[in-house]
Amino acid sequence: MEKLDFLNPYFLGPYGENDAIFEKIITELFRDHIYWRRNFHPEDIPPISTMATYDTDYNQFIGRMRQELHKLTAQLKSSVPSYHPRYVGHMVSDMLMPGLIAQLVTTLYNPNNVNSETAPVTIKLELDVGLQLARMFGFNTENTKEPIAWGHLTSGGTTANYEGLLNFKAAKFYPLPLKAAVDAVGFKMSVLEGLPLPATKLDIASMTHWELLNLSIDEVLALEKHCLSEIDKQPDRALASRFRKCVADNRIESLGLVSFSNKYWSGELPVIMVPVTAHYSWEKAMKFLGFGSAQIIKIPIDDHMRMDSAMLDKALAEAFGKKQPVLAVIGVLGSTEFGTIDPIHEIVVLRDKWHSKGLHFSIHVDAAWGGYISTVFRDGNGEMIPRKAIRKEFTFFPSEELYSAFDALSEVDSITVDPHKMGFLPFGVGAFVARNRSITRLFSLKAPYVFDDGSGEGGDQASIECEVLGSDAERVREQRRSEEKLYSQFGQWIVEGSKPGSVAAAAYVSHAVLPLDHNNMGRIIAQTILSCEYFYEAFQKIKLDLKDKVHLVMPIEPDTNLVAIMFNPIGNRDAATMNRYSYRVYEHFKVDATRPVQDKHFLGTHTLLYRSNLGSPYAIKICRELNIDEQSFRLGDESGINMDEKASDHLFVLRHTTMNPWLRVETNGKNYIDKYFEYLKAVLLKELV
Amino acid sequence: MEKLDFLNPYFLGPYGENDAIFEKIITELFRDHIYWRRNFHPEDIPPISTMATYDTDYNQFIGRMRQELHKLTAQLKSSVPSYHPRYVGHMVSDMLMPGLIAQLVTTLYNPNNVNSETAPVTIKLELDVGLQLARMFGFNTENTKEPIAWGHLTSGGTTANYEGLLNFKAAKFYPLPLKAAVDAVGFKMSVLEGLPLPATKLDIASMTHWELLNLSIDEVLALEKHCLSEIDKQPDRALASRFRKCVADNRIESLGLVSFSNKYWSGELPVIMVPVTAHYSWEKAMKFLGFGSAQIIKIPIDDHMRMDSAMLDKALAEAFGKKQPVLAVIGVLGSTEFGTIDPIHEIVVLRDKWHSKGLHFSIHVDAAWGGYISTVFRDGNGEMIPRKAIRKEFTFFPSEELYSAFDALSEVDSITVDPHKMGFLPFGVGAFVARNRSITRLFSLKAPYVFDDGSGEGGDQASIECEVLGSDAERVREQRRSEEKLYSQFGQWIVEGSKPGSVAAAAYVSHAVLPLDHNNMGRIIAQTILSCEYFYEAFQKIKLDLKDKVHLVMPIEPDTNLVAIMFNPIGNRDAATMNRYSYRVYEHFKVDATRPVQDKHFLGTHTLLYRSNLGSPYAIKICRELNIDEQSFRLGDESGINMDEKASDHLFVLRHTTMNPWLRVETNGKNYIDKYFEYLKAVLLKELV
Repeated sequence: MEKLDFLNPYFLGPYGENDAIFEKIITELFRDHIYWRRNFHPEDIPPISTMATYDTDYNQFIGRMRQELHKLTAQLKSSVPSYHPRYVGHMVSDMLMPGLIAQLVTTLYNPNNVNSETAPVTIKLELDVGLQLARMFGFNTENTKEPIAWGHLTSGGTTANYEGLLNFKAAKFYPLPLKAAVDAVGFKMSVLEGLPLPATKLDIASMTHWELLNLSIDEVLALEKHCLSEIDKQPDRALASRFRKCVADNRIESLGLVSFSNKYWSGELPVIMVPVTAHYSWEKAMKFLGFGSAQIIKIPIDDHMRMDSAMLDKALAEAFGKKQPVLAVIGVLGSTEFGTIDPIHEIVVLRDKWHSKGLHFSIHVDAAWGGYISTVFRDGNGEMIPRKAIRKEFTFFPSEELYSAFDALSEVDSITVDPHKMGFLPFGVGAFVARNRSITRLFSLKAPYVFDDGSGEGGDQASIECEVLGSDAERVREQRRSEEKLYSQFGQWIVEGSKPGSVAAAAYVSHAVLPLDHNNMGRIIAQTILSCEYFYEAFQKIKLDLKDKVHLVMPIEPDTNLVAIMFNPIGNRDAATMNRYSYRVYEHFKVDATRPVQDKHFLGTHTLLYRSNLGSPYAIKICRELNIDEQSFRLGDESGINMDEKASDHLFVLRHTTMNPWLRVETNGKNYIDKYFEYLKAVLLKELV
Repeated sequence: MEKLDFLNPYFLGPYGENDAIFEKIITELFRDHIYWRRNFHPEDIPPISTMATYDTDYNQFIGRMRQELHKLTAQLKSSVPSYHPRYVGHMVSDMLMPGLIAQLVTTLYNPNNVNSETAPVTIKLELDVGLQLARMFGFNTENTKEPIAWGHLTSGGTTANYEGLLNFKAAKFYPLPLKAAVDAVGFKMSVLEGLPLPATKLDIASMTHWELLNLSIDEVLALEKHCLSEIDKQPDRALASRFRKCVADNRIESLGLVSFSNKYWSGELPVIMVPVTAHYSWEKAMKFLGFGSAQIIKIPIDDHMRMDSAMLDKALAEAFGKKQPVLAVIGVLGSTEFGTIDPIHEIVVLRDKWHSKGLHFSIHVDAAWGGYISTVFRDGNGEMIPRKAIRKEFTFFPSEELYSAFDALSEVDSITVDPHKMGFLPFGVGAFVARNRSITRLFSLKAPYVFDDGSGEGGDQASIECEVLGSDAERVREQRRSEEKLYSQFGQWIVEGSKPGSVAAAAYVSHAVLPLDHNNMGRIIAQTILSCEYFYEAFQKIKLDLKDKVHLVMPIEPDTNLVAIMFNPIGNRDAATMNRYSYRVYEHFKVDATRPVQDKHFLGTHTLLYRSNLGSPYAIKICRELNIDEQSFRLGDESGINMDEKASDHLFVLRHTTMNPWLRVETNGKNYIDKYFEYLKAVLLKELV
């Protein structure tokens, strides 16, 4: 086994081993902040007198403050010890020291990353992080090529997912009012060769609504650009102004879904397609956006619990057949339950196939969990490392499918990734990354030159200068400068408003010290996968070991670094009894704030395998492996109350994330995974009764 | 003047005066965390060897980390010095030390406030903060009375605003599928006296859709409760199950806006009404929710830039006339531009008036900025202090209207407030507070007993136990317990998913040390208002002083702690020239990251007064005061390009927040406001040219 020494300086450590260096740097940088404060206008006399500390009221306040802080830290000691290799629960582990320190220190400066006036420094860092993540996925970030990718941070993956859908919605429906405006002002565009789109897709006046609803994002942007440049060539300037107003007033964002639909599209409602394994936030997202959960088509999963691309193809054919617009297909890169990786490459192939047939959908990848695994695949130049070379470092990883899925990321439209998950940063930081940054301009509320709404939160001085300037040439120049600045003016168009700059500093410094490639961040991520492989092999041993007492089943072979275990006592045949047993076992691994956390040997989590999410062949297979009567694992009715005592609509699954980098560290001849299985075995037998 | 000494221990200070106590506590609590780590399983041998620090690779990493951190802090020194009394810009100031320290320390424990399994400690603190804020607004938080209020934290005010609308939408449209389900299963409810609703509002079968769309939130909840309890009395249990499914499948959240509207409501589209001064995030909110910006009715403001309630009444009458559902009226408590306070009390009166006529709307108050001013008005028992008593402490504050507006907060449905603004906490913490917590149950995705989706993020063990349990009685008991737990299971129904528990700890400790009442937090807030009053009076002096050189105008008398100043050189008559002059003046107060921040004497911000937001009488008045030709301040066309060189569609306004508590501290005989005006005067004269 590779020595784990390289990990030594990365984290505070399971034993707080790096306490000295942590304290030294924190103290240095906190003091540095203090002296920065003193040097803003050092000639000012300090308002707080040096006599203050002799004052009773002063000391009483400090006393109360310390008291409350002690009460807080006393309570915090019941926290989940997520930094420790005995924690194999949710998607969280220890935090990378560079990011952690950067976040703590930047909090003292308190920048607000809503625009560059409130955070001149950390906004730039945030945009840099966006580019780092974009390169990690293989997107182009050079100004010399189109399209240019970009990204920014969010409060978490959920809001990044919303943003993906909001952008897709903006692009999907934009061409309809664009055509309406062309018709309304009655102008004829030139449809020449050599333009970014084929003539058939530029002749907007003769395109049907269905055709307009099936352009790709790049096509929509090219069409928009062409229309605007054509109209701006018209001698009558009022025409261009009327045209823009007509488009703006009739966009789906202005009219709302109902009016827009009444006006332009009375056909089938737009849908998104997600694998049944998708995170619940996708349903939340659709409700949030006013589309409703009925507009989600859930695509079945295959035996590896990955989206079944044949079923996706079928669903797309159906949509095509009834002219149902498909807003998006969502691929999941690391499902919350099992860490499974959807076949992104196959989704991309289907996109191209259906696009050529006249049905277009955008692809968003929810890589909140799995996004950082990309670092394992990319070398220092951002190139994909051949699968063969990577295979050498692992026992099973990466399968052909998995490798292809990661390779195909550069072809999708946008991606969600959570630095607070496998980026090993403190909670409160997700990210949204888009292949073509111009989508943002399409979604943004206003044209750049009226971007200043006066609140100071979305605006920028460039816009004012622009309005104050005289000539048209100056105006155009300013407009361009202003457009460039758009990407640093978050407030107007991202989901959140004010947001902490400290998390941007954390991600930036973390990625600077540990670049997002195979030899740096990838090395840590590789450990999580190696631990998972070790876990898998150790499981086979204990399975054999317990074969006369308990059926032990891994419902799927892990794709990445999540493992799931199911267990059923020998002799039992019904699902409900198995669940009761499993739950008793889980009690030993469950967070329980009412008892000292030291009571626990290992901490895990669970999930439920719902019958309704499984195809029959898979459900039968899993029942056979567990020796459960298939009749007792069945679909419930809506209220879930029509089950007898033996039956259940779900099966209990013990679930572990092998994210902690120290899982395979050996102390007294055993690593933490060995110790875990020793303990699990004891619990399984104990609860047999 | 009251002595400002009481402020001494609250903040790190403009000069970092409290460095010693800050460092002492931080070091203590950071070390405490380290030793907590060591005491989880102290028998485990530490994975990081004590020899690590002698290793070259180790030291090279630490070296690189320090290097990157130094690069970060070097850059951070170009940050906006928002802690300093020379910063009178955006809504930010120094941070309260108790909250700041709590946040820094809790970050080390890294709790994720998405549910109680990932954050057993900080979720409780978050709910407590919700109750503290609810009491600050006068809502009931006792379990002995209905309705019970609650609140939770968000990443910022913007997402809290979304949540308000999402809740209102859920309640507004719920009765329609409820009626449909009653009709579908064909059951007759008993309509008895003594129920929470008058008989006319319980006889759902005979109510029209318009009537059902005009129930209050409390009425909707009472109706739902009655319907469910009636159906549960039916001997045929399948009926109840069918009924619930029918309701669930037909809710607006399931069908989406378009289908729902096609099915149930073909009349006028629902609207929200906001004052023209509302933050741009309301437009963003409507677009996100799929309603569209066309469904916003902007209510004009009066001479004090507060929502004109007569105009609101008129708009409501129009909506009533054409049977247009009004989803919400938004009152702004502290507008971003001018800190003005809308007449909440008058909105409440109008709500009651129109409700009795048959038009209902819910009220959400956007108190992101002004919410904490409530602390000035409430005593330690949460009671409103008589206006007379408060008046004694100020020169102008609070006006009768303002007092009444704050007094009426307890009557509204929900409120947004930002602890990262006037709560003096680090960025990244807003809050949503609702008068009736049951609204949350209505919005939540699933019934509590199927609340566990297996992701571990929204679920809770109670639900599993419940499903595993045998008898009905047990089931009901568990269901109740589960419902209680709902309020700590954020993930399923708030806008965000994962969220940092550290900000909850910050708000909790801050409010514990400085309770949200007149004598504690209120005392700090009072300083910001007293500074504003001083500023106002100092302005009158300089105005007189410069009367032969520059027209100085305050466009409105400040309501709270924001001030706005406009200036026009004597002799100039056109708006564009005035803007150019103002912009030159503003350059001196503007954040500019390309130059050392020490270059600046004072830092301010700006806003633009758009002609389109003003009534004609007010526009004429402001032009007269500035001696601007009214013809040069006029409406622009959509593209903003049809202005000549003299005209503009807006006027430039210099804007200051008097939030820093040290503004009136005197050093060498002058306070910071005096110094500011000295400087402003010099700049105004310098830029006259």
